[in-house]
Amino acid sequence: MTTILKGNILHAPAFGALETVPGGCMVLEDGRIQGIYPVLPERYAACPVTDYGQGLIMPSFADMHLHAPQYPMLGMGMDLPLLDWLDAYTFPVEAHFADNEYARLVYRQLAEDLISSGTTRVAMFSSRHTDATLILMEELERAGVCGAVGKVNMDRSGGPAQEGTEESLRETLRWLEACRFAHIRPILTPRFIPSCTDGLLEALGELARERGLPVQSHLSENQGEIALVARLHPDCAHYWEGYRKFGLWKEGTLMAHCVHSGEAEQEAMAESGVWAVHCAASNVNLCSGTAPVRRLLERGVRVALGSDIAGGDQLAMNRVIAASIRASKVRQMETGEAFLTVPEAYYLGSTAGHAYFGGGGFATGQPLHAIVVDDGEMPRPVRELRLEERFERAVYLMEKRHIRAVYSEGRKVLDRG
Amino acid sequence: MTTILKGNILHAPAFGALETVPGGCMVLEDGRIQGIYPVLPERYAACPVTDYGQGLIMPSFADMHLHAPQYPMLGMGMDLPLLDWLDAYTFPVEAHFADNEYARLVYRQLAEDLISSGTTRVAMFSSRHTDATLILMEELERAGVCGAVGKVNMDRSGGPAQEGTEESLRETLRWLEACRFAHIRPILTPRFIPSCTDGLLEALGELARERGLPVQSHLSENQGEIALVARLHPDCAHYWEGYRKFGLWKEGTLMAHCVHSGEAEQEAMAESGVWAVHCAASNVNLCSGTAPVRRLLERGVRVALGSDIAGGDQLAMNRVIAASIRASKVRQMETGEAFLTVPEAYYLGSTAGHAYFGGGGFATGQPLHAIVVDDGEMPRPVRELRLEERFERAVYLMEKRHIRAVYSEGRKVLDRG
Repeated sequence: MTTILKGNILHAPAFGALETVPGGCMVLEDGRIQGIYPVLPERYAACPVTDYGQGLIMPSFADMHLHAPQYPMLGMGMDLPLLDWLDAYTFPVEAHFADNEYARLVYRQLAEDLISSGTTRVAMFSSRHTDATLILMEELERAGVCGAVGKVNMDRSGGPAQEGTEESLRETLRWLEACRFAHIRPILTPRFIPSCTDGLLEALGELARERGLPVQSHLSENQGEIALVARLHPDCAHYWEGYRKFGLWKEGTLMAHCVHSGEAEQEAMAESGVWAVHCAASNVNLCSGTAPVRRLLERGVRVALGSDIAGGDQLAMNRVIAASIRASKVRQMETGEAFLTVPEAYYLGSTAGHAYFGGGGFATGQPLHAIVVDDGEMPRPVRELRLEERFERAVYLMEKRHIRAVYSEGRKVLDRG
Repeated sequence: MTTILKGNILHAPAFGALETVPGGCMVLEDGRIQGIYPVLPERYAACPVTDYGQGLIMPSFADMHLHAPQYPMLGMGMDLPLLDWLDAYTFPVEAHFADNEYARLVYRQLAEDLISSGTTRVAMFSSRHTDATLILMEELERAGVCGAVGKVNMDRSGGPAQEGTEESLRETLRWLEACRFAHIRPILTPRFIPSCTDGLLEALGELARERGLPVQSHLSENQGEIALVARLHPDCAHYWEGYRKFGLWKEGTLMAHCVHSGEAEQEAMAESGVWAVHCAASNVNLCSGTAPVRRLLERGVRVALGSDIAGGDQLAMNRVIAASIRASKVRQMETGEAFLTVPEAYYLGSTAGHAYFGGGGFATGQPLHAIVVDDGEMPRPVRELRLEERFERAVYLMEKRHIRAVYSEGRKVLDRG
């Protein structure tokens, strides 16, 4: 079935690029983009049109690192040092997801919050609980969120949230067995090196290889963690080698943070096709630092953005994009590394994350992932604004109430009429 | 008339302090706070009660530095260098406020935006236009925003927004003559040293002295500006001396930014009773730096917060508070100066600003400035939250839709029922 969306179409097809088609038409074939036209070609004249008028039609957001079971503690404990925060909030809160009924309520709320904030793709950490992880995947699927979710593996240093090594593997297999979702795939998720024994990491690496499964974890977030990894794995000169040793460092592995990744680690990422997921808000909240985003990109490392809730305090990815720009400005003041422009940071928070799953942006042939923004109630300008200006303003000022419609994988999943 | 507000009462009476009265009662006499009680004293049993149930009753915000005529450009041009930003946006946008009809529309929208964001007090820059400034004051008064507004004086380096020296003084007198508002007072507002001739500064200093008028301006925002001031006033060893020379450096003078104020300047502020208005979001957006807030406070300088729109991109002061915390965490990473906690930053963004006008917080005898926050739709927690936790979460997550009621100067100015 062919359908047409009409409106002001904007997208960031490449890092730094911004394409605009004012009053344009997007032709969809069963929800896949067939083309974008300044004027609708005659052959489509009879197709049904959804006309968004002055609305901005932009790629939706992709949140490539967040902890679903930390959603209940969003915006709390931010004054605590990292270890106290983990003990007072993270571990006890995550432990609650042994309760399936509670998990259902929270994950339904989270999935709806994601969609109404314009995020249609995720790479997400669950807790160690198999059933709650499946409930999370069900709720994301129901709301229209696509992407990858991982049951967390942690058989060391996890307090009440910890599991046994055998249990961790057995439950991972049970989870994989039960993963049958149209839009949410499993991703292996060792929490990070310090919370997994060598035996567990080795078994997960084996599983990744055997079944061709992707992997996500954390890398070089703060100095204390880096020192701990060095003590645990004295044979590894760098943090990343701990993952490589067990077969977890490979094409498409997602590594959150990379704040303190040095040259060698950055090169290893580029060479192996490992992605960096930049979590600017979290990195400042937890005093971890500011990641070398532009350096990573210049070296050829693929970079996407993550809200990292609840180290990050905002689920809305336009705020995470703004936080990335601000972190890059801080970094420019410190190191001279040029800050991220709005189109650059928007590319990282939308197109780049979508591209992890194939395609991305408004490329022809891709299923549509888009938001429609109504900026009519934003501050009254002195003159007609260029689309590029409205785009920038939307990134900075957008709230849920401005998001009029959301499309995910070609389906309309939110419609405020 | 005696009225009672019931709910979870929180306030920050001093820097770093947070007082909570769960399910408490606030007794108001004609809108002035008579007392806060855990249980309503028998003598008030017959008074009418507004029961906010589980709502949080907290002091409203005070935005102590913002540029009203820059509201139309909020969230735009943030990728530009400062001078290009001024030429492309600030000056041409401000010039539009020669049009009274346009000013009325924009300032009404701004005033409503302030109230619905929970800001009930301001210290605000208008443009150089006398009539538009009076319209701004009218619209603030109508919406229920209290505080101080200044017609900007600038007879140098202001492009199309500039005025002649004589004109500037004549219009200032005309403006002062027409200022008859119950809740909005005039404040003298030389834009900053580089945009005023010596003659103008001298005349304004004279006017401040003669009529006992307060003063607001900018100080030590960035290095280029500091170098320019040094060239313009080679007799002044420090930026601040440029203001002192003309009688503008005095008790209650508000100085925005103070990012690069050194020891001598900080001491001069403390000695003279000059206030620093910290604008964290703006300072990062424009790559100005991070201000030494804790150092200023330790030296005895009074500090409040400002959104500094449109150098800042957010009007909502809870976001400005969060931005101040994040800027202070960046500063801690750079200099070791301890970051601002949530109660500390909230104090600066509410009580401290109110105190500029007398009183502040929920002190007895003060007219009520408060917001009522309904956090019932925030992420479902795992257990009952302490009020301190709900307070922190409100600061990080609050959006307009969570603000159920706003009180300004004892009057209810917003009521979402």
